Order: sequence, then structure tokens, then C-alpha cells
Amino acid sequence: MRIVVLTGGIGGARFLLGVRAYARQVGAEVTAVVNVGDDLRLHGLRVCPDLDSVMYTLGGGADPERGWGRVGESWTVKDELAAYGAEPSWFGLGDKDLATHLVRTTMLDAGYPLHQVTEALATRWQPGVRLLPATNDRLETHAILSADDGGQRAIHFQEWWVRHRAQVPTHRFVFVGADSAKPAPGVTEAITEADVVLVAPSNPVVSITPILAVPGLREAVASGPAPVVGVSPIIGGAPVRGMADRCLEVIGVECSAAGVGRLYGGRSAGGLLDGWLVAEEDAQTEVPQVSVRAAPLRMTDEAATTAMVRAAVEMA
Amino acid sequence: MRIVVLTGGIGGARFLLGVRAYARQVGAEVTAVVNVGDDLRLHGLRVCPDLDSVMYTLGGGADPERGWGRVGESWTVKDELAAYGAEPSWFGLGDKDLATHLVRTTMLDAGYPLHQVTEALATRWQPGVRLLPATNDRLETHAILSADDGGQRAIHFQEWWVRHRAQVPTHRFVFVGADSAKPAPGVTEAITEADVVLVAPSNPVVSITPILAVPGLREAVASGPAPVVGVSPIIGGAPVRGMADRCLEVIGVECSAAGVGRLYGGRSAGGLLDGWLVAEEDAQTEVPQVSVRAAPLRMTDEAATTAMVRAAVEMA
Repeated sequence: MRIVVLTGGIGGARFLLGVRAYARQVGAEVTAVVNVGDDLRLHGLRVCPDLDSVMYTLGGGADPERGWGRVGESWTVKDELAAYGAEPSWFGLGDKDLATHLVRTTMLDAGYPLHQVTEALATRWQPGVRLLPATNDRLETHAILSADDGGQRAIHFQEWWVRHRAQVPTHRFVFVGADSAKPAPGVTEAITEADVVLVAPSNPVVSITPILAVPGLREAVASGPAPVVGVSPIIGGAPVRGMADRCLEVIGVECSAAGVGRLYGGRSAGGLLDGWLVAEEDAQTEVPQVSVRAAPLRMTDEAATTAMVRAAVEMA
Repeated sequence: MRIVVLTGGIGGARFLLGVRAYARQVGAEVTAVVNVGDDLRLHGLRVCPDLDSVMYTLGGGADPERGWGRVGESWTVKDELAAYGAEPSWFGLGDKDLATHLVRTTMLDAGYPLHQVTEALATRWQPGVRLLPATNDRLETHAILSADDGGQRAIHFQEWWVRHRAQVPTHRFVFVGADSAKPAPGVTEAITEADVVLVAPSNPVVSITPILAVPGLREAVASGPAPVVGVSPIIGGAPVRGMADRCLEVIGVECSAAGVGRLYGGRSAGGLLDGWLVAEEDAQTEVPQVSVRAAPLRMTDEAATTAMVRAAVEMA
């Protein structure tokens, strides 16, 4: 059995803990197609927040409290950069985390594509699932700010998210590079050969949508042989974590299991989903052309997450 | 009064503490022309050990015990790089130090030449003297190893020094880039306008010689209007610190105040020096065509170093 998961960020990383556990139970192989829309260059280093969240979480090195970065992290380099007045100063570049970016950047600058770099980094972390960036090319999420000037100012998503905490009037999101990016080697093949495609309960607007914005990737999922089941990141009208509510507001989508389900849409109606797994309190959710089922969706521990993955796979 | 100091490494950095103190007493301006032969790229970052030793020492941020790097240093990034198996692992890249290299590399990659980058970094450290790299171009000291294969293997000086602790049969040193490097902007002017040029008690073979290997730089000093006074790094037949004895052995020069004085040579005989300041125990030193004087040369504290600088300047 082959499982492909579209994923990003910390919610997706925790979901993958359950996918991995489920896969070990049933002897399945897992490929995670990870969002790169959050990636950025900081102080000359290529930072891939979502790939790293997944890698650290599955490799046992993530900070469970903070929700991002490394456990037992220190901030010496960040403080020193600030002492030099180096900008940006709002991004939390930890000392341990920084070594990952140094290795990655050195390999990228030496000519290795991101998917090979990711594989090399994973030899240390042994995540137990195959990690693939959605694309090796630049595909950056930017927020276009609402303004009297007619919305001419775009800022990188990380600046919008980390620096402004999503508290700035925003017109929309765009994906820089989405006109020319190609799926990373292995992504289309994995989707085509999958027995089931899961859409993780990640931020639909800035984690899943940028993956689907890679030309050819949405089509591969929508027209592929595998059933596609999504898991709602919204429970009872609120995101489980993060600021999906702010992102959904920007694009004019109701912050509800139904709203996100309809955003993805039914496959037979030109959308993405065959099935949509929602929380028990959202059992009444209806999404046209999509089979909806309810199950406990709180990822309180690995067993709960594994049960949730089992419910999603069983829908397929 | 204008003082130019040719310098490199920690011995030169401590000497500069005395030069700065002396310059404050007499109202002089100081320009330090710093060796870049030790520079290297590590994990994609440009590291300038001598410029940093000088900057940290004069800025009050150097580790006085270790003799290099930052005081209160931590090694998190280094340990993490080792966990990735990233090479080289033998260079001590501290967390605090690393921020300097990040800022420097970002600026260099953005197109700023090294002398401007050095000036920018110095705005934080306020060294109180003008720091100039000998050249903005690549000029790297490599050690050519003695071997049965006829000496075809060259290694970067830092690998020779740090990794092998100079304990490897060595044929000679070469300066990669010395055919085409140019003095950094300001260097030739500073030398030409100087009232005195001091050669710091740095390693003559791998700190001072690579500075002089920049085409035009030796000529500027040798033919310039200012008297040139060197300070011996060898006291009683042994280097005060470091492995100058090993370096001198490689090039076949006696490890003595006389040996180094003759290596530099008298200006009127086609060499560098007008005066050569040696330690009291080396008072009998003779260097053809060079005026030799003896004084206490142990840089035990700033006052002792200042007195030593005064003695050197008074020779001029």
C-alpha cells in the first residue's frame, strides 16, 4: 500500500506521526509532499520551515512546546546578528536549526536540487517516510497588503505571519514562481502510483494551496487513480492551531469544516476531494459531491492521530 | 602622526592594543594592514581569522585564554554540523563567531568588497584603528606537503595549522592568488602617507609574508618614505606563542631574532627593514644593513605592549 500526504507546517508534521504509525501497522509506504511556499533566504541561508518541521518532528528533534524549530534550542547566533544590526531580526533562527540551513545552503549552492538535499538531511533524522518538496523551484507565498495605494505592497508570507502575526489588512495571497515551477522529481510519480492521497489538516490557504499551485500537481491529484481524502484543520469553527482563520478570512472563505471542504471541492465537480473527514462536532457538514465522515480529530497523542489516519484511509 | 602596522593573527592583535594605546597618547592615527592568507570558506561562509582576531581583540570581544575567537563562546552549531557529518569538522566555528561570518558572507555575496565589509563589521566593534585587509582578492596560504609523490599535495594553511597542528612533513608554503591580487583600496595610500611602518611580532612566514606577497605591497613599503621597524616574534630562540618555529623550519630559516630579521632583510639591501626591535636576551642580534635595538618584548599587559610600541616608533 502506498500513501501520499500533501502537507505543510506543524499540523501536517504531527499528522504524519500518525500516518507513519498507521503505515507501520499495515506495512504501507508513505511519501509526504511538503509545502515550500514558506521558504525564504535569511542571512544568505535557505530556510525551509515546513520541510524542517516535518523532518524534526518525525526525527524526534522538534520542540513540542513551541511548535516549530528544535527542542533544547539556543539563540546565540540570532542575538549576535542583532548586535550587528543585521536584518531581518524578527525571524527566530535558532543555533541548532541554523546548522540545517548551513548544510542545505552549501549543498544547494553546490548544485544539488532541493529534493536531493532533503534526502541527504533526512539521513540524519530518519523520518521513516519519504520527504519530497512540492517543487525544487522557487514558489514563494506572498501576502498582498490592502492599502490606500491599491494594494501594491507584497510581503513574504513569513513576514506576514511571524513579524505581523497576520494582523495587517490583507488583500490576498500570491505564489511567486507558480507560473514556471515544476513538481520535484518523484512527486508526480508518487501521486500517480498512490493507493490513497491524504490532504493533511494543515493550513488550507498557505500550506496546501501553494502545493497545488505547482503547475501539474493539482491535475496529477485530481486526475490520478487514487482516492483523495482530506482531513479538516478546522474543528467547531476554529483552527486547531495557527492562524488559518486569518488566512481564510483573507480569501473570503468561512472558517468551518464546510468552508474548507468546499474550498478544496469535490473531485467529480472539478475539485480535489473524494472524502472529507471532519470532527465529531462538525458531523453535519455537507460538501457537494464529497463524502463526509466524522471522527475524533484532536491529535492529542500518536494513538489518537493514528486512529484519525485510519479513519481517513478507510474512507478511501 | 600616521602609523601603519602590518599584522596578522593573535600576536599582531595584541600588539595593536599597544599601538592603539600609544597612538592615543601621542594623537596618532593607526591603520592596520591585516593578513588574509588564513581566510577560508567553511560551510559556505567566508571566515577571516586574522581580521576577526584583530577586530575582536581591539573591540573587547576576544577570548583571552584561547587566543582566538569570542569570549563566552558556545559550540552548538559546530556540534550540529558534526551530527550531519558535514566536513570539515576540525575547524572551531563558534556560535558567536559564526554571526560575523554570516554578516560578512551576506555582504560579500551582495557585491561589497572585503574592505567595505570589514569597515561595516567594525562599526559594531569600534576597534579604534582602521582595519584594512591586505587585499580584497583571494590570496590563500597553502602548505605543500613533502611526500614520496614529489610534493604534489597542497592543503589550505588552516588545515595544516588547525587540523595537523603543523605536525606533517612540509615542503613549502605558497600563496594562491598572489599572481593577480591587488592591494585593497587604501592600503597603498596608507603606506605611502605613513610616518612609520611597523611590522608586528606576528608569524613572519604565514602572517607577514602573505601580506607582502600582494603584488605592489612589498614595493610600496620598501620604496615608501616612512621608516620601517619590525618587532621580533622570536624571543630567545622560541616563538612567544603559536608555531612560528615550525613555519620557519619549513622555509629553512633559523628560529631566532636574527633569523627572522635576516628573512625580512635590510631596506638598503633590497629588503624591508630599517630597524629591528628584539628582546633584551637577543641584544647581540645582528642583521646586515639594519639597525637593531633591544627592549622588553613580552606583551604581558597593555602598558608593557605600549612601551614596546614606543620603543619601536622611537627607532624610526
